Amino acid sequence: MRQNLRIPGPTPLPAQVQAAMHRDMIDHRGPEFANILNQCTESLKYFYCTKGDVLIFPASGTGGLEAAIVNTLSPRDPVLAVSIGVFGDRFAKIAETFGLDVRRVSIPKGRAVDPEQLRQALDENPDVKAVLITHNETSTGVTNPLKDLATIVKERNLLLLVDAVSSMGAIPVLTDEWGLDVVVSGSQKAWMIPPGMVMVSVSERAWQAVQAAKLPRYYWDFRAAKSSLEKGQTPYTPAVSLFYALEVALDLMMREGLEAIWERHAEAGAYTRNRIKEMGLELFADERYASNTVTAIKVPEGIDGKAFKNNLRDKHGVIVGGGQAELSGRIIRLGHLGYFTKEDISTACDAIQMELESLKVAP
Amino acid sequence: MRQNLRIPGPTPLPAQVQAAMHRDMIDHRGPEFANILNQCTESLKYFYCTKGDVLIFPASGTGGLEAAIVNTLSPRDPVLAVSIGVFGDRFAKIAETFGLDVRRVSIPKGRAVDPEQLRQALDENPDVKAVLITHNETSTGVTNPLKDLATIVKERNLLLLVDAVSSMGAIPVLTDEWGLDVVVSGSQKAWMIPPGMVMVSVSERAWQAVQAAKLPRYYWDFRAAKSSLEKGQTPYTPAVSLFYALEVALDLMMREGLEAIWERHAEAGAYTRNRIKEMGLELFADERYASNTVTAIKVPEGIDGKAFKNNLRDKHGVIVGGGQAELSGRIIRLGHLGYFTKEDISTACDAIQMELESLKVAP
Repeated sequence: MRQNLRIPGPTPLPAQVQAAMHRDMIDHRGPEFANILNQCTESLKYFYCTKGDVLIFPASGTGGLEAAIVNTLSPRDPVLAVSIGVFGDRFAKIAETFGLDVRRVSIPKGRAVDPEQLRQALDENPDVKAVLITHNETSTGVTNPLKDLATIVKERNLLLLVDAVSSMGAIPVLTDEWGLDVVVSGSQKAWMIPPGMVMVSVSERAWQAVQAAKLPRYYWDFRAAKSSLEKGQTPYTPAVSLFYALEVALDLMMREGLEAIWERHAEAGAYTRNRIKEMGLELFADERYASNTVTAIKVPEGIDGKAFKNNLRDKHGVIVGGGQAELSGRIIRLGHLGYFTKEDISTACDAIQMELESLKVAP
Repeated sequence: MRQNLRIPGPTPLPAQVQAAMHRDMIDHRGPEFANILNQCTESLKYFYCTKGDVLIFPASGTGGLEAAIVNTLSPRDPVLAVSIGVFGDRFAKIAETFGLDVRRVSIPKGRAVDPEQLRQALDENPDVKAVLITHNETSTGVTNPLKDLATIVKERNLLLLVDAVSSMGAIPVLTDEWGLDVVVSGSQKAWMIPPGMVMVSVSERAWQAVQAAKLPRYYWDFRAAKSSLEKGQTPYTPAVSLFYALEVALDLMMREGLEAIWERHAEAGAYTRNRIKEMGLELFADERYASNTVTAIKVPEGIDGKAFKNNLRDKHGVIVGGGQAELSGRIIRLGHLGYFTKEDISTACDAIQMELESLKVAP
């Protein structure tokens, strides 16, 4: 049975991306690779909406979050970590692991951060040097109102570190216009290539923080990455096959157009939410802030969430994400990001509906 | 012109490995991925000659060196870093970056560590907790006598961290028998797959060090990797396409056989050294310790090393590595590791010979 991979990343790969990885290896210190690296970096800047730097590391998204912290902060620095779910908690936990003085604001799962809440938290913690925010919380299907939140952070001239792993390239993120200092994205999401590569933007303000920061860093060092990039290289061996994939994927994205991609994701999000509600299911997220890359769906009372998810896989070939941490078994998460067609989304919704009806008529 | 990629990694890819990466993405939290992860881990243990743990991270080899240090040591711990080249210097530099008290032993480039030298350095530094050693120094084409060095380290019951990035899987590394505690290898070397994945073995003694170590670690945390592995997962999104490649590459390696692979590399090393000497060129490495994965060749006086390297590429399609750091322009490095045939090596040697002769007859 053909699988309809509807987890919120890794996303399916365009055929051109799969074919790109079939290419022979090349010298990662030679002119061919330099050209690919430069092309990819320039295109990423376009999708990031930034004139600042974008650096690329072989790692998963979590590595990018760690890089954001160790490059810009010093031990015991007070930071505000605003979490709306598992990935926000992870960002805060990384900051704690590296000895920062983390002031946590935890929002109930399914909700977004209210800008007034952020303003109040900053009033109560006037000494924080940086704010850590998840743009799109993959674990709950919620997108924070990042533009409004950034405005408040910028009023106070604080550093803003953003986890945009599951939003960048799919949902508007205007890095420069909104004043975002470090923005992390991951290859296996909107970029439509396999996992293993993380992209990080660095603003002018972030570079100043990098100079002052005292946390130790070697592999993640933004300075080494930037000085190598100026020579068309990476400091350590790059993930060459993922660069082949990225070059082709970015070309496909350029041809589709940034706003058309945002629109496609917005349509898929709205379509999915309508279908889910029409079949009598409830959205887990506050609908005003529901994500356009992943929809979290409450599993109705009396239905075994894990069995429901397994039935979707085994009977319909639809692979969805389950709930994480305390949401395990209580929600399923349907991804609609990166490479997908309307039919991929509608047949996944059909499968959910069929499975739901089969349970309703069951004795 | 077909390129004969003769840098010491990334190595060319077998056709089966290229084809493997053509596969569709799957759920990295599902049973199919768990099966691949478990298979790969078991095969890696076989090639590592260990019954201990082998953990896999999305990263380049340098990330694995950082992981080895931050998982097993605490700030200000005294360690002995024995360097015979650029990668040994890097290992020491990472240790310094993380605040260790690094006692450096720097061996002149082209030489291996003499076991007596190590014994003496340990006598002079009786307080060190760990020894950092490069097995195969890619920058100079030298292989350290790791078994003998390990014996000395083990006599003193110290932790032994080994950079085996360009040796593991190609040159004998008997992890358990020699008492190696953390051994780092990289996907783009003997494993014959693209770069972007690092493998790290962890001995029982290393696990004890992990429990006591106080350096902060999140992304690289061996404990998280091990507990996820027990559930057939990785803590953060794995490099799925590289796992597809690795599964197939390890299967090819199993069929060839560990000792046959070692023998193929030994033959290629001996062949290359003989050809180089026959054409009147000098080896850069002390021949007793010359590497069987990469041969470093002195560029004769009066020849421009960079032009020589570029001519090999442009006129013969042979891509070799140049000298790094102060060896830039002074040596070329010919890789013979991972996926290669005898013809790949002999034609590369032919190209060097032709280029050399064309320079000799030039006015």
